[in-house]
Amino acid sequence: MQRDDGELLARVLLSRVVEPGDATVGRWVRELGAEQVARRLREGGPRLGGVSDKRWAGLRDRAALAEPERDLALARDAGVRFVRPGDTEWPAQLDDLGDARPTGLWVRGGAGLRMWALRSVAVVGARACTEYGAHMAATIAAGLAERGWVVVSGGAYGVDGAAHRGALGARGATVAVLACGVDRPYPRGHAGLITRIAGQGLVVGELPPGEHPTPSRFLVRNRVIAALTRGTVVVEAAHRSGSLVTARAAQRLGRFVMGVPGPATSALSAGVHGLLREEAVLVTDAAEVVELVGEMGELAPERRGPVLPHDLLPPAVRHVLAAIPGGRAATAAEIARGARTTEDDAVARLYELRALGYAERHDDGWRLTRRAVICARAGRAEC
Amino acid sequence: MQRDDGELLARVLLSRVVEPGDATVGRWVRELGAEQVARRLREGGPRLGGVSDKRWAGLRDRAALAEPERDLALARDAGVRFVRPGDTEWPAQLDDLGDARPTGLWVRGGAGLRMWALRSVAVVGARACTEYGAHMAATIAAGLAERGWVVVSGGAYGVDGAAHRGALGARGATVAVLACGVDRPYPRGHAGLITRIAGQGLVVGELPPGEHPTPSRFLVRNRVIAALTRGTVVVEAAHRSGSLVTARAAQRLGRFVMGVPGPATSALSAGVHGLLREEAVLVTDAAEVVELVGEMGELAPERRGPVLPHDLLPPAVRHVLAAIPGGRAATAAEIARGARTTEDDAVARLYELRALGYAERHDDGWRLTRRAVICARAGRAEC
Repeated sequence: MQRDDGELLARVLLSRVVEPGDATVGRWVRELGAEQVARRLREGGPRLGGVSDKRWAGLRDRAALAEPERDLALARDAGVRFVRPGDTEWPAQLDDLGDARPTGLWVRGGAGLRMWALRSVAVVGARACTEYGAHMAATIAAGLAERGWVVVSGGAYGVDGAAHRGALGARGATVAVLACGVDRPYPRGHAGLITRIAGQGLVVGELPPGEHPTPSRFLVRNRVIAALTRGTVVVEAAHRSGSLVTARAAQRLGRFVMGVPGPATSALSAGVHGLLREEAVLVTDAAEVVELVGEMGELAPERRGPVLPHDLLPPAVRHVLAAIPGGRAATAAEIARGARTTEDDAVARLYELRALGYAERHDDGWRLTRRAVICARAGRAEC
Repeated sequence: MQRDDGELLARVLLSRVVEPGDATVGRWVRELGAEQVARRLREGGPRLGGVSDKRWAGLRDRAALAEPERDLALARDAGVRFVRPGDTEWPAQLDDLGDARPTGLWVRGGAGLRMWALRSVAVVGARACTEYGAHMAATIAAGLAERGWVVVSGGAYGVDGAAHRGALGARGATVAVLACGVDRPYPRGHAGLITRIAGQGLVVGELPPGEHPTPSRFLVRNRVIAALTRGTVVVEAAHRSGSLVTARAAQRLGRFVMGVPGPATSALSAGVHGLLREEAVLVTDAAEVVELVGEMGELAPERRGPVLPHDLLPPAVRHVLAAIPGGRAATAAEIARGARTTEDDAVARLYELRALGYAERHDDGWRLTRRAVICARAGRAEC
């Protein structure tokens, strides 16, 4: 259990009781703290402001049925952890969502979400995409992975799946943000893919184990994809597509919005072309995406060297760092052997080292950054 | 012959002697007048500034061989007229080219170039376009024609030809700007098309009858296409395509630059996508083009009614105006019968009436503008 059990259990309870993105409850949590809100829902007392009696009663009914200790235990057994604001793994950029910030995130997979999210791009689009859309999603995702960027998507059929597969195929990092419990792969046909993502990347969601997706949960989930990442690439989207919701959320949050063009005759590109006529930047490959999202030099740690002293790295990460050879590139498999871990685990750590400024991914594999080499030579502990 | 024979013959001579777009000679003409420049080239005297002795000698050799009276007579026999700055048919927007302004334009076809150019859009692109590119060029050109806009292009294979054909197919107005003499259709395979354009629209060029196109003449010609029109639409263009020269010229001249997207995998869309990543606006149909170029409300005469009093209209134009029925739309063919002229001639006059604010083109044919109807009812001569 974590240091502050009461706050943890309160957030787990809220995760079960409150629909994702509920800004009214978010405001209560900001004003009163999660524990106080959970207590009021469980033990009664006067209704909190901003909801009807009926809705308050509904929340109380759900709170009475919630079993946060059991949720946590079951999740732990399924290899799922709960990450909440303030945790070292909490991605601080989600705080940009204000009162609509998730209560917490349920996370499956070995990598550190916070580090990964620092250098991530969303690649989203139509479920019923064309072969062209699938090709572009996979190619751009693979190119992003090859350049050391983490590909975030929604795990759906079509563009999402192609993006995840493109990243996985390039031995890259990918995160699926689901609109249901992370123990419950949706869609069913992507059970294998989502298991692979959990093994080599991360599967993340706001909803506790066992929860089902609903149409509104898909749309509300999109704000998390937009907020987690530096920018959102829309590959194919018809007018009124859910991917446009992600794009608009990204725009509101000050993230980069990008679109991949297609034939003007294709209804599945019409939504993207609409975006491109407004604010979005046209991109045709991963290099153009990186050119844009990588421009924020001041936020890109590798440009100013490591941001976390070597001695503070978790041991598993330090072992992988030690296994990167000095003067040349190495594959994730070779580094995994040197660090005596699995290749999937090595990839997860390498992307964290990338985010921290220790390692770089090139076409021929992983290398130490110049700064990391200099620090290693100097034997400086603070590097 | 026109009122000022000397100036006319001087410009015809310069049109034969000087390569299009020569800004040095353009400066001489601005500073000394065309007659004085022609005289210095023919009769000798000290070299004018800004050219080498060799180039001066070359210009003088060409001037010695020029026969402007004969050029004019041959052109007249071939149905070609010479339009120069100051003529009522001269399109004033070409003056934006500064010293690179054409000395004059050779024109074939029944319509008035100045009026047509007021409401014109360039549709240009790759010679070796895809079927998709040809389809988009034809569709957009037809849509522009249906909305009463004049389609300007370069008469080349591929996108240019498809754009001209699209406009002609919609009984619309189209202008081919050639990089050779307008009596000499280039490419040869477009001899039939260019003859049709001369019959139903206008064929225009800077070079006098008999001159051949050269690679540099194609590029220099593009500035005329850009300057004549309100905006340029690039349909398909590879990197380093000549159409991008037109687009950049349009940009420099403050015209609208538009691009039609295509698959990111198509090399023939790569140049367009590059433009769209810079300044160009993405367009997928004629409505989007008109939305953009039509925004200049203050320059669009039909919004404030006719700009030329009825009594000053040339008789041929007045007859066509009189043949437009009062309360309904009519086809060009019907109006032609009423005006006792050919359909091609009626179309030419109708587009002039459109530019002057008397007529509108709708999907179902031509109508009087509201303002024209009001003026006709009031019997006001100044309308």
